[in-house]
Amino acid sequence: MKKFLLLTLVVPFFSISQTFKENYDSDAAFLKKLSDEVLLSKSADSNLFYLTKNIGARLAGSPQMVMAENWGKKALEDAGADEVIMQQCMVPHWVRGGKDRAFVSFVNKAGKTQRVEISVLAIGNAVGTGAKGLKAEIFRVKDYEDLEKNKENLKGKIVFYDNPFEDNFVQTFMAYGKNATYRVNGPSRAAKYGAVAVMIRSLSHSSDNHPHTGTLSYDESAPKIPAVAVGLKDVRKIDSLFDAGISLSAEIITNGQMLADTIAHNVIGVLKGSEFPDQILTVGGHLDSWDVGEGAHDDGAGVVQTIEMLRAFKALGFQPKKTIHFVLFANEENGARGGKKYAEEAAVSGKKYVFALESDAGGFTPRGFGFSVPDTSWNKIYTWKKLFEPYGSDQFTRGGGGVDIDPLRSVGTALAGLHPDSQRYFDYHHAANDVFEAVNMRELKLGAISMGGLLYLVDKYGL
Amino acid sequence: MKKFLLLTLVVPFFSISQTFKENYDSDAAFLKKLSDEVLLSKSADSNLFYLTKNIGARLAGSPQMVMAENWGKKALEDAGADEVIMQQCMVPHWVRGGKDRAFVSFVNKAGKTQRVEISVLAIGNAVGTGAKGLKAEIFRVKDYEDLEKNKENLKGKIVFYDNPFEDNFVQTFMAYGKNATYRVNGPSRAAKYGAVAVMIRSLSHSSDNHPHTGTLSYDESAPKIPAVAVGLKDVRKIDSLFDAGISLSAEIITNGQMLADTIAHNVIGVLKGSEFPDQILTVGGHLDSWDVGEGAHDDGAGVVQTIEMLRAFKALGFQPKKTIHFVLFANEENGARGGKKYAEEAAVSGKKYVFALESDAGGFTPRGFGFSVPDTSWNKIYTWKKLFEPYGSDQFTRGGGGVDIDPLRSVGTALAGLHPDSQRYFDYHHAANDVFEAVNMRELKLGAISMGGLLYLVDKYGL
Repeated sequence: MKKFLLLTLVVPFFSISQTFKENYDSDAAFLKKLSDEVLLSKSADSNLFYLTKNIGARLAGSPQMVMAENWGKKALEDAGADEVIMQQCMVPHWVRGGKDRAFVSFVNKAGKTQRVEISVLAIGNAVGTGAKGLKAEIFRVKDYEDLEKNKENLKGKIVFYDNPFEDNFVQTFMAYGKNATYRVNGPSRAAKYGAVAVMIRSLSHSSDNHPHTGTLSYDESAPKIPAVAVGLKDVRKIDSLFDAGISLSAEIITNGQMLADTIAHNVIGVLKGSEFPDQILTVGGHLDSWDVGEGAHDDGAGVVQTIEMLRAFKALGFQPKKTIHFVLFANEENGARGGKKYAEEAAVSGKKYVFALESDAGGFTPRGFGFSVPDTSWNKIYTWKKLFEPYGSDQFTRGGGGVDIDPLRSVGTALAGLHPDSQRYFDYHHAANDVFEAVNMRELKLGAISMGGLLYLVDKYGL
Repeated sequence: MKKFLLLTLVVPFFSISQTFKENYDSDAAFLKKLSDEVLLSKSADSNLFYLTKNIGARLAGSPQMVMAENWGKKALEDAGADEVIMQQCMVPHWVRGGKDRAFVSFVNKAGKTQRVEISVLAIGNAVGTGAKGLKAEIFRVKDYEDLEKNKENLKGKIVFYDNPFEDNFVQTFMAYGKNATYRVNGPSRAAKYGAVAVMIRSLSHSSDNHPHTGTLSYDESAPKIPAVAVGLKDVRKIDSLFDAGISLSAEIITNGQMLADTIAHNVIGVLKGSEFPDQILTVGGHLDSWDVGEGAHDDGAGVVQTIEMLRAFKALGFQPKKTIHFVLFANEENGARGGKKYAEEAAVSGKKYVFALESDAGGFTPRGFGFSVPDTSWNKIYTWKKLFEPYGSDQFTRGGGGVDIDPLRSVGTALAGLHPDSQRYFDYHHAANDVFEAVNMRELKLGAISMGGLLYLVDKYGL
């Protein structure tokens, strides 16, 4: 009897670990094949080159957005999609309307007035000053507390939010998380106290002078006022003048305008599942980009990785059990309308949107993934961690997703975001230097390999 | 009695884990202080800027080498060294002697001879062709096997080692490890069969045309022949001609010359140990660089990290129990004489060289360390791994060190090498684009933080 008990205890244990080992080996072998396929191909290189150099910046509503959609459809077809769905949605249509300029004026030590041009970019979705521009004294505040303390003194002024992008966060997104509010909400908060325009420090650690744009969100209760981001070298100049007790005024000329919403599309490459076609795995990045630079890291990388996964899956003859949507989302930057539309359609589709994965943090060496999943799924996912070690993407953390896939929370989809190394991201983010040359294609490809591996595992084992 | 046994078992366990927890918290707090100190300081930035822009390339024997030594001494003093030792050693003195040039000639489809300049760099330590140059037919071989197969056909030819730098290694040093032999040993192996010169593919994945130099080692049994590395765009051109069945000849003009050995110095900043001054911890990078570019990643990064650790330790008031040597090694690139000298002096010093740590793989985001240590030390080190997670440098692997510290193996020193992310390293390695602008200072600083943390732990707990 004792012997029998021992056997029943040992045999299942043996066969479980045997199965685990066999699965591990075959999964590791698949990831290695995927890695070789992606690293040895030049397909991602030429896709990113085309998107950045032949199309370039592609803000929602721009002619380049339409070019990018057509290119994306063709690229997904060429990569082997069973079909490509053009999912229509309405997107904001903001135009910069010309070159943004700004000048600061001050009385120098010799008693003479000096007027110096500074490098600025209007913040996206902002109203412009019009061609004549706007001139006023600059009032510098450190943060919102400082703003509130000085609320009586802001009438007719240009408020300069001089809140530094903190260097001592190892994860640079922590600095962004802390500061982005000055760009997004700062204009309306200053307008409430009578400010006529806002200048912000560019949200970046970079040592160059490129201003970094991004979106703002006007509060309907305050007047809409113009807002610009200033290059960091010029911020240092302005700060040194203020620190020396010198008063500054600024002249700002911007021409931003919000036109009527226009039509765009989520471009969805479909790979049909062989066993569970109504269970959907979603992976994607966003096709739109700010209107400066070439949108290479943000989010050409995510777009190209998405197409590359499909291409590599087909090249390897991998047939998923579940249906995979390879999605180039229409509009993330200044409205997040693409993701909203996708989730709306998901909600009424009658299908189960099991899992969604997004790459929108640049084409840098992957470090891991952040997961927004229930505990049971997390426990399963965590057993896969070791498979990602050879690709350097085995930092699995809880919490994660992305602007485009977050609306899928409402239909109960498990979410994950690719976490690339974040050190360089804000050197390029929303700036003119976010170009093809700033991307190391090997780093971008390692991201595609890691994401592809994760999709393969979710398809095979479920969540 | 039973109760007593239980108590003796439980109490020590409790106090061990209690001590562990307290140590862990205080160690984590130290690393965080170190991180803040380094990330918030501009000291590393200005050091790298000075070394790369004001001094620049600094091959052993060059006037810039002497400038770099003097600068290094001053920088270590300014950082707070108790003393700076200039440890003299003899180093090779190779000079390039002017601009390297090469032209390939072939008969085109129209029957006309075309002569096209290609981008080359003489391999370091190589003899030159002299001003008149050398002209011969090119014989392309894939690898040594191909060379041996064709050994009867190489007399009077220029052998072109067309061995690709393989893209599918995730760790790029694996590709380098496989290919470097064609640069180091290829010239003598071809000379043995009567070849008059050698061309190699640059050891790089890069998509630009910068040739990548590096050292060779002549075998005394064969004639010394000139050797050049070719830029990868030109390699593709040459390959397409060969692939089309076209014969090519090349004209090479190089002026390399090996002069008599000259005097250089390991620059050693000393921080004296308070309890065990005769136990030495060594940390360093190498001060010399190839004569093209600015030696920013290779190994300005290691040099600047070394100085920065000392500066930050002093700024934090950290007093080590053991003595730390912050070493700027004299000569790694074309002779490895600095490290040899340092180990020779260690062997006769009567002191115990406990641990040595090197940074010579670029100023990229750190991923972890490789350790060449006995099992007992490894088990101890592994308990520290979690402390490095917040800095992304917690991939601890066995095997590691560096060219400058490897000679310390002979005195029983435990070794470790910093492992930065390797994707971009060979884009810049030994090439004209290894300049200040190629370095992201946050990434370099995270390496200094990780190395400083490791030194702190080895000092505190021993190995």
